[in-house]
Amino acid sequence: MLVSEVGEFGLIEVLAGVIGPDPEGAGANGFRLTLGIGDDTAAWETSWATELATTDTVVEGVHFTRDTTPWADLGWKLMAANVSDIAAMGGLPLYSLVTLGLPADTQVEDIRALYEGMLEAARKYDVSIVGGDIVRSPTMFITLSLNGVHSGKPMLRSTAQPGYQVAVSGYLGSSAGGLRLMLEGMEADAEADAFLRRAHRRPEPHVQQGLLISQAGVGVAMDVSDGLLDDLSKLCTASGVGAEVRSDAVPVHPLLQRAFPHDALDMALNGGEDYLLLFAAPADVMSRAIEKLGPPAAIIGEITDGPAGTVRLLEPSGEARDVNVRGWDHFK
Amino acid sequence: MLVSEVGEFGLIEVLAGVIGPDPEGAGANGFRLTLGIGDDTAAWETSWATELATTDTVVEGVHFTRDTTPWADLGWKLMAANVSDIAAMGGLPLYSLVTLGLPADTQVEDIRALYEGMLEAARKYDVSIVGGDIVRSPTMFITLSLNGVHSGKPMLRSTAQPGYQVAVSGYLGSSAGGLRLMLEGMEADAEADAFLRRAHRRPEPHVQQGLLISQAGVGVAMDVSDGLLDDLSKLCTASGVGAEVRSDAVPVHPLLQRAFPHDALDMALNGGEDYLLLFAAPADVMSRAIEKLGPPAAIIGEITDGPAGTVRLLEPSGEARDVNVRGWDHFK
Repeated sequence: MLVSEVGEFGLIEVLAGVIGPDPEGAGANGFRLTLGIGDDTAAWETSWATELATTDTVVEGVHFTRDTTPWADLGWKLMAANVSDIAAMGGLPLYSLVTLGLPADTQVEDIRALYEGMLEAARKYDVSIVGGDIVRSPTMFITLSLNGVHSGKPMLRSTAQPGYQVAVSGYLGSSAGGLRLMLEGMEADAEADAFLRRAHRRPEPHVQQGLLISQAGVGVAMDVSDGLLDDLSKLCTASGVGAEVRSDAVPVHPLLQRAFPHDALDMALNGGEDYLLLFAAPADVMSRAIEKLGPPAAIIGEITDGPAGTVRLLEPSGEARDVNVRGWDHFK
Repeated sequence: MLVSEVGEFGLIEVLAGVIGPDPEGAGANGFRLTLGIGDDTAAWETSWATELATTDTVVEGVHFTRDTTPWADLGWKLMAANVSDIAAMGGLPLYSLVTLGLPADTQVEDIRALYEGMLEAARKYDVSIVGGDIVRSPTMFITLSLNGVHSGKPMLRSTAQPGYQVAVSGYLGSSAGGLRLMLEGMEADAEADAFLRRAHRRPEPHVQQGLLISQAGVGVAMDVSDGLLDDLSKLCTASGVGAEVRSDAVPVHPLLQRAFPHDALDMALNGGEDYLLLFAAPADVMSRAIEKLGPPAAIIGEITDGPAGTVRLLEPSGEARDVNVRGWDHFK
């Protein structure tokens, strides 16, 4: 059987079978594992805190092409994607290892630019790159791993309950708008153009927002990297619940609305790489959290009792449609 | 300028320039960095311990080939290489993330076998695989990252002083002997054959030994992965010192000696992948450490005042020759 036949999720099931269940309270060398495969990061408890670890990889020809992706943008985004995973747990990002798989004909200047982008993002979030590995590879790839810490109980994808309110920590779709401008060689008005392109090229993970809502008592969160509906469906699958979203409650930046009056909402619902937070909590906790964040953070809907993984989108017209996405499969 | 022109070490210098120096006592989000790029692992201090992180990657066609490397062996060795980096610091390995870059035509059974090998090694050292990433890639690669912990001050490569004694924690060259048997389709006598092949296919990092010598006060160590003389030269370069090694003091297993009477010593001096520990300490500390380990751990020489990075090999005949290796460059 080939990986292309079982797909990414089939392969994960096979490997989870090999690993076996985490026995309750077990861990490594006496350090209790609190969260293994399946959330934004892994998590384990030490005597002083909960530690978090995540990793993300980009491969040339699959996730980027040398001709069209500026190296510094690629570096920023790879760091941002990892930082965002820590933010989704309500944690603080700390130290990062970088692995470079490089063809021998790689330009040193390109790798320097890649590193400059990674470091620019790292400095913004007070992350240090502290090591890694450099190997020769016929295909270029870059793997980043990042450790973080949470002083209490990290936010999870798997604990949403029917009746919880669902919220996002900021404007959605801006990155998709910037991508559209670039791909189609369009130009919006100068202000919108600069804002949207920057949103796509330099997305800013919501670390502070994650800390604030976690402190406010929010227990359920993930980051929005593949698109709101897609990621909410994943969160619902992990929790065994459904959700309803009111499309007119989804925060869309006025500049995205101005540049794409017809498509802005679709971008906000389905566009990827915004790297902000999607979270759920009972009404009293949610009102504290939303107050701490302030606008544009907004309640957009609520958790329902299912079917598991299904998101129902409510239009202002009264129309409703069900969305059930299993996420992007790298192999299918 | 191409990576193949500057080489791995040239590229590392360029990137170190981009990263800049670690300001004394600085760190990430208030957690003090104690060791960045250049040792077996990165290290940073928390309120309760020193945390360690390392990563290692293998690429198809560069580090292994599907036809000749059994998948389970590959998995064991990749885990062992990472565990050994933690052992070299005197730390305890804890949690691991695994990234798989897979062509679509990869056999699921092969990846299952790879995982079984990784898990076999992980269980032996009480490490948990807690997450990772699976991506499509034209070239297969596997990246493993591993976090560990040290309750005090990790052992470093960079603090050896002239006059320190140099020791190793076990028999050297056995893995190289096993590799030779496999590559040349030879067979030694049954006992030696089984021992040497296992030494190559299932190397066992010296975690307990690392803990013991670190507790005994040893401050300088690294793991032997590229060969004794090569790795000792690296340790000397990092410390700005030289070393002398008495070839007749290097521990060689009787079964390696029996299978390769003429080449055993050369394998012990230059063979790779034994994954035991090379360490240095003043005589009083060293005698405590060697006593704790017991044979076959042995003192093999001493640190000299230079030239930096040069290892002088002393033969029983009284002959001496200088060895100065800069390590394997992946791009040159």
